[in-house]
Amino acid sequence: MPHIRLPEGLQGIRGPMAFRPETAKPLNELAETLLHAPNSLPAGDRELIATYVSYRNDCYFCQTIHGAIAAAHLDGDEDLVKRVKADFQHADISAKLKALLVIASKVQRGGKHVTAADVEEARQAGATDIEIHDTVLIAAAFCMYNRYVDGLATWQPRDEAMYAQMGKHLASEGYRISSVPQPPRKELSTAG
Amino acid sequence: MPHIRLPEGLQGIRGPMAFRPETAKPLNELAETLLHAPNSLPAGDRELIATYVSYRNDCYFCQTIHGAIAAAHLDGDEDLVKRVKADFQHADISAKLKALLVIASKVQRGGKHVTAADVEEARQAGATDIEIHDTVLIAAAFCMYNRYVDGLATWQPRDEAMYAQMGKHLASEGYRISSVPQPPRKELSTAG
Repeated sequence: MPHIRLPEGLQGIRGPMAFRPETAKPLNELAETLLHAPNSLPAGDRELIATYVSYRNDCYFCQTIHGAIAAAHLDGDEDLVKRVKADFQHADISAKLKALLVIASKVQRGGKHVTAADVEEARQAGATDIEIHDTVLIAAAFCMYNRYVDGLATWQPRDEAMYAQMGKHLASEGYRISSVPQPPRKELSTAG
Repeated sequence: MPHIRLPEGLQGIRGPMAFRPETAKPLNELAETLLHAPNSLPAGDRELIATYVSYRNDCYFCQTIHGAIAAAHLDGDEDLVKRVKADFQHADISAKLKALLVIASKVQRGGKHVTAADVEEARQAGATDIEIHDTVLIAAAFCMYNRYVDGLATWQPRDEAMYAQMGKHLASEGYRISSVPQPPRKELSTAG
């Protein structure tokens, strides 16, 4: 049961986002800019970084929904998502994405773990400053989203088919608040 | 030296925010809503939560600037900020804020550490659902901001008087992007 009275029937982050639309707006805008807006780093790569960090933070909702979004961007290759989570160094991804995942995994543990050598390796593999910046911020942002989702003990049904369906929708439509169905406003007035 | 080529002369998060204004916008809006917008939880309490989490994450820039903002909201009581960081259970703050700081410290370690008993204790001390929600999200958000600032190895000059001055300005003006002086756009085109 969630720690606070959230609107019912909304999975994971959707519950607290409906409860507090004032903070949902910048949270969705940040996700839209980092994960869905045009970028030299493909959306599938960005979603794999988000999925990997959420896996390391043991957040079921975030790793499952972003894994589904990543798979939708990767022609439905759910196996690749699983291989990246289990051992990205031996997964069939680019050297650049491997170097960015090393940076992301350091950020997950704490910002100071990232070294100049980690960044140089990413640069040698072709990463630009904006791609390195965005990798650090995606990893940092999922250290927030994961803690938000689990810190409120949100409802996270174990239903992979449902996440696969939501993943396809989000991969196509992105994170703009208007694209996420909202419950009627009266359900939200449950603040204690 | 920062890991990527950031505009010079901007402390901490201000460097990457000037480098990437597209993500700076939601990051600032989130801080404005959580820390500065009207709330039943005083701005000083919210800044103490941000400062405490940043201290636990060992982020010099964030703990120093938000400590200065907290002190500005608390009639300049810098000693109280230091006492909260060192041992908040014995600091001269309300039982409600102590219970919220317990929740924040759990979120800093990971969302799943927060227990129903922690939340019940905060509720018994008078915390509302929105205050509990905002505490979880402030703590989670600073797990992002701290990693963003340190993960890019931003410039963090050791100059407490300068932070005290910036803290007074931010306590009064808040985090809207328009209130933060920006360098000319041409300095920003340093992406690798």
